Amino acid sequence: MAKLNENFLTLEKNYLFIDIAKKVNSYKEKNPDKKIIRMGIGDVTLPLAPVVVDAFKKGCDEMGVKETFKGYEDSGSGYEFLKQAIANYYAKIDVKLELGEIRVNDGAKADCGNIVDIFSDDNIILLTDPVYPVYADSNKMAGRNIIYANSNEENGFAAMPSDISIADGEQSSKFKEFVAKNVAKIIKPSIIYLCSPNNPTGSVYTKEQLKLWVDYAIKNDAIIIFDAAYESFITEKHLPRSIFQIEGAKKCAIEMCSLSKTAGFTGVRCGYTVIPNDLKIGDVKIADIWARRQGSKFNGVSYPVQCAAAAVFTEIGLKQIHENISYYQQNAKIIANTLTKLDIKFTGGINSPYVWFKCPNNLSSWEFFDYLLTEAQVVGTPGAGFGKNGEGWFRLTAFGDKDLTIEAMEKIANLLAK
Amino acid sequence: MAKLNENFLTLEKNYLFIDIAKKVNSYKEKNPDKKIIRMGIGDVTLPLAPVVVDAFKKGCDEMGVKETFKGYEDSGSGYEFLKQAIANYYAKIDVKLELGEIRVNDGAKADCGNIVDIFSDDNIILLTDPVYPVYADSNKMAGRNIIYANSNEENGFAAMPSDISIADGEQSSKFKEFVAKNVAKIIKPSIIYLCSPNNPTGSVYTKEQLKLWVDYAIKNDAIIIFDAAYESFITEKHLPRSIFQIEGAKKCAIEMCSLSKTAGFTGVRCGYTVIPNDLKIGDVKIADIWARRQGSKFNGVSYPVQCAAAAVFTEIGLKQIHENISYYQQNAKIIANTLTKLDIKFTGGINSPYVWFKCPNNLSSWEFFDYLLTEAQVVGTPGAGFGKNGEGWFRLTAFGDKDLTIEAMEKIANLLAK
Repeated sequence: MAKLNENFLTLEKNYLFIDIAKKVNSYKEKNPDKKIIRMGIGDVTLPLAPVVVDAFKKGCDEMGVKETFKGYEDSGSGYEFLKQAIANYYAKIDVKLELGEIRVNDGAKADCGNIVDIFSDDNIILLTDPVYPVYADSNKMAGRNIIYANSNEENGFAAMPSDISIADGEQSSKFKEFVAKNVAKIIKPSIIYLCSPNNPTGSVYTKEQLKLWVDYAIKNDAIIIFDAAYESFITEKHLPRSIFQIEGAKKCAIEMCSLSKTAGFTGVRCGYTVIPNDLKIGDVKIADIWARRQGSKFNGVSYPVQCAAAAVFTEIGLKQIHENISYYQQNAKIIANTLTKLDIKFTGGINSPYVWFKCPNNLSSWEFFDYLLTEAQVVGTPGAGFGKNGEGWFRLTAFGDKDLTIEAMEKIANLLAK
Repeated sequence: MAKLNENFLTLEKNYLFIDIAKKVNSYKEKNPDKKIIRMGIGDVTLPLAPVVVDAFKKGCDEMGVKETFKGYEDSGSGYEFLKQAIANYYAKIDVKLELGEIRVNDGAKADCGNIVDIFSDDNIILLTDPVYPVYADSNKMAGRNIIYANSNEENGFAAMPSDISIADGEQSSKFKEFVAKNVAKIIKPSIIYLCSPNNPTGSVYTKEQLKLWVDYAIKNDAIIIFDAAYESFITEKHLPRSIFQIEGAKKCAIEMCSLSKTAGFTGVRCGYTVIPNDLKIGDVKIADIWARRQGSKFNGVSYPVQCAAAAVFTEIGLKQIHENISYYQQNAKIIANTLTKLDIKFTGGINSPYVWFKCPNNLSSWEFFDYLLTEAQVVGTPGAGFGKNGEGWFRLTAFGDKDLTIEAMEKIANLLAK
């Protein structure tokens, strides 16, 4: 008799953003004349850069001609022209990569979720709280034990090894028993997820902070899975855009990145995963095991999509996408300036498209969500949806229209000044 | 300390087609003047249909304009326009599907490999031997126990429930012990993979044969994963193109299909998975669990790719792709006719792009591979690479150029007539 993977039954049925959509739709039905401004989901709104569209279409044309038609990609890990473009992009921040260390994918989310397949289920997973729900859910699906490092107001929502707590997390009763019995000993995580610039808090690790995480991972033979999806929003040059800018990281880290936020590819689907050749468990190269997994469960990214992605990294491509990023950065500044004027504490907004702020008047995240929706018709994301440390905090995104962002922040300023 | 999923270390390191490529390259180096004809890998060679390229490019153009730009797809399961096109395609063979039963993906391989994530690791997996290696490898990666049903000359390489053998398969020592102790009892598989038209053997189940499998699955509360990737090659109307043409299948089967072979999408990447609403374990709808899994580990298919895919199912699209399929079917006939003349036993070739034949002179699969490569410069696929029942058999594909297919078959005819 076929049996389910019962871990799925323990997951929350609804994704945070589906709950939000329900509340918004219900408000809309009751108030059909009200104009709602959406600053909740982290999705881009500006179109693809012209040079990207041209390359995309050129790729389509090639697929319509026998001589240039492309079938299966031999390796399924990305065409050399795109891997070379990515390697050149890394070279600009002094990170040298071999092409074999890069695998092109259909966006960071799939690799982020699937990478743990190659690790044993009895690894202990460390997440920072608040957290992007995919890191937690993809591990809960395999029944892995999770512990948290607390990101909070005290550490600027940038958790460090010293903030690890084993008291919380999704843990089996057996694990909890083990913890209780061995309370004097130290439970060490073996797989660590870090996201910088952070989703949802917008905080960015400095090189010194990341070095502490790298040192911690090496000392404990742990592997860091580093999500760099928002690296292109970093403006301050001293901040690291890749974990491989940190000495030692090639021995302990996997980096995931995506063109979703960098070049508006949320609906195009292209990203890349970097697994250094030096990353090994015993004699086994992690890159080889991941290649074996992908060889059976992935068949490469659409050729025209890879053509479009490669255009992003050309000189003109980088110039064109920079215009879009600047547009979003201005929105972030508008949000941040309003919060500063209102004397509301926040992180992010400078090197991140997210602004994460403390709900005024000691409101809970969902109370503030309702208040903002009904009084200002602005939709944001309640921080509590990202973990216990998000309670009492709120996220706004800078990916919207500039005029609407100005309008929303004026409404919020008026509302909170009352 | 980070630990590997050790199941990966038990997998064979090289994929069959990599071994073949090595042998071919080595021959080529020693014989640089010889012209090699490749009939090994099942990859298409004709370009995309014109109407598909146009729709693909129109989708790209929409992504370059703010008003028509598409970011994240809400559901990540495919746009309604494409799901409706797929539902209409099924309606032509009298299979009624609701749009919620269809999920668009980036090709059948990923879903085929990932679907088992939602089932417990202690399910017993049934594969037919010879088998498409992905079914076996994706289950070995999770350490699942596999048993086989034998496809062989006697049953026309179309294994039936009566051909199930528990003597062979990848099994833990604990499982083998259990089998030994309970030899009088019957071990029943709970997840069954079927592929029809079959890769690699080209055999096609009749409706009566599939009904036996469906009845067997229902009787044993098992789930069938049905790979219909080659359905568009079926010319004989009485043969089923979908398992859902069989009564009862909606209660026990998941179907995977792809545009790779139907419309030359091997480099474009688009397919679909059908999970009927009636498919449940207890009260739990399998479609809901799969949606939850994909919600965390997949972010939808590229919008322009979905536009291209929808164009395949238009009237003009179906006419244009039919021309390509006919071209390949002629190649299959050329191969089959030669084998008939040579009095060599084979399956496939009529309702399938694969022709599967017995190696002449009692040669082993790899002996015949070497013989064909060195004496006729034709590359095929040794049947032994697909499982023990493939030993002594050989696969040729019809996806090549027509003139080259004629040339190759003349060379083979001359060689074997000697």
